[in-house]
Amino acid sequence: MALDLVRKPDLLAEAMTEAARLVEAQLDALLPVPEAAEARLIEAMRYACLNGGKRLRAFLVMETAKLFTVNVTCAARVAAAVEMLHAYSLVHDDLPAMDDDDLRRGQPSCHKKFDEATAILAGDALQTRAFEVLAEEDTHADAEARCELISAFALASGARGMVGGQMIDMLAEGKQLSGPEITRLQALKTGRLIQFSAEAGAILGRAPQAQRHFIAAYGRELGGAFQIYDDVLDEAGSAEDIGKTVGKDAAQGKATMVSILGLDRARAQAEHLADQAAQHLESFGERAELLKLLARFTVTRKS
Amino acid sequence: MALDLVRKPDLLAEAMTEAARLVEAQLDALLPVPEAAEARLIEAMRYACLNGGKRLRAFLVMETAKLFTVNVTCAARVAAAVEMLHAYSLVHDDLPAMDDDDLRRGQPSCHKKFDEATAILAGDALQTRAFEVLAEEDTHADAEARCELISAFALASGARGMVGGQMIDMLAEGKQLSGPEITRLQALKTGRLIQFSAEAGAILGRAPQAQRHFIAAYGRELGGAFQIYDDVLDEAGSAEDIGKTVGKDAAQGKATMVSILGLDRARAQAEHLADQAAQHLESFGERAELLKLLARFTVTRKS
Repeated sequence: MALDLVRKPDLLAEAMTEAARLVEAQLDALLPVPEAAEARLIEAMRYACLNGGKRLRAFLVMETAKLFTVNVTCAARVAAAVEMLHAYSLVHDDLPAMDDDDLRRGQPSCHKKFDEATAILAGDALQTRAFEVLAEEDTHADAEARCELISAFALASGARGMVGGQMIDMLAEGKQLSGPEITRLQALKTGRLIQFSAEAGAILGRAPQAQRHFIAAYGRELGGAFQIYDDVLDEAGSAEDIGKTVGKDAAQGKATMVSILGLDRARAQAEHLADQAAQHLESFGERAELLKLLARFTVTRKS
Repeated sequence: MALDLVRKPDLLAEAMTEAARLVEAQLDALLPVPEAAEARLIEAMRYACLNGGKRLRAFLVMETAKLFTVNVTCAARVAAAVEMLHAYSLVHDDLPAMDDDDLRRGQPSCHKKFDEATAILAGDALQTRAFEVLAEEDTHADAEARCELISAFALASGARGMVGGQMIDMLAEGKQLSGPEITRLQALKTGRLIQFSAEAGAILGRAPQAQRHFIAAYGRELGGAFQIYDDVLDEAGSAEDIGKTVGKDAAQGKATMVSILGLDRARAQAEHLADQAAQHLESFGERAELLKLLARFTVTRKS
């Protein structure tokens, strides 16, 4: 069926809302608050990962999973694991010793709502729970698939991925990184987990290598577009729209793609990557329509 | 072969040294320092988990693995994962927002040697790497066994295990916990991971349920003995022997088994648990001799 052009933005918004609903139901179910002394820990974990957000990563998992007709609950569990991992990284990034951010999506960040010790522990336990969920049989009947998910997830999120990127980011304060250095920083810090989110659907669906290759390429370009456009928003957006302090990277003396390329060329580069991302999905035809719309959305969003 | 009674302590010391050597070789191999901007992160990870220590958990994995004739390299990989997890928990526990400890095993703690941000990230990435190592095929040919390891490891180390225990510990400052509350705190904070270390050998060896039951019971009692004896050492030991600030728990107003039971009864309780632990291994005969000696060592050590 051909999609009515006028309805496209609505379709994407509806699908993203539905993915968010499914993943939040999973997060709610996977993080029950115990009647025990440590209830505060789970409350902080829930606060960190049930506070809204676009659920971009969850949507990527759910939507690529559809391409390979994966069971929705299995996909939602993996999406929940990715959102837990993402939430833990935000909680730790916001800590005073790191980015020292008091606000996250317009709400007090976890260490402001609770305290620093609780925020450190909530982040730690969110990471653990994410791996635990992936290892459980409900995520996939085949243990080989679960191990493959866990390996790819760890690679994307550890020292050779997200945490490595965050380390480079901390070390970059007050330094002038080059364009390639910023690109690598962003690929590690944000790109790898976005790419994993796309690939997860293909892993769950035991997709053939050729198809996995296209999905991985889509995820990689999309991640690049996403991060460069984040720099654009950080420079050009308003505090109201993005719910966090604006111009913060520049104030901390951090180089961004905007400081290297200027606002217009950075925006153009993000759009170019988004177009490339969409092109990698050509072979999937109309079934990948929402993923292509997502690429477009990534570089037109307001927050 | 009957063990010469006089040589027993030497035999245990030799076996523990050999297990430490094997696990440290694995840690060294599993954490190569890249020629990249984030090298500092891996250096901090290596500093945190290659700084000596008794390697009690590693020894438990290696020694129970022998009972089920598990390949030594597979066992050493799991032992390395457990030591990474343990090291991450110490790095985060030592942070100013947590226990605020400047010393660890007589050396500057990770955030003193590096800085707070690096210590938070090194802990995070050590946790990730631990799960990654368990998921890799080199750890066990059967993905079902790897997933089982990961599930048990996550349960022992997350909100329902180690991190949950640390949360209770933070909340307990200035409060008077009861004996059962302290026992639960210690079981979560330290006991679960020690128990997992023992069980890991049985999981790797696909041991029958009855044998796993005995190994789990051994690990559980050993963990209890270990923690109570830690309280005894904290009260009675010297700073030189244990390489960290002595009497610290008492100074922070934290209840311990010593403050509840008194030094002598706490010591007797630790010894009772160590005896019980050894008894759970009766059916393994002399092959479990070193594990039984370990139980004894746990409540006679100086640090």
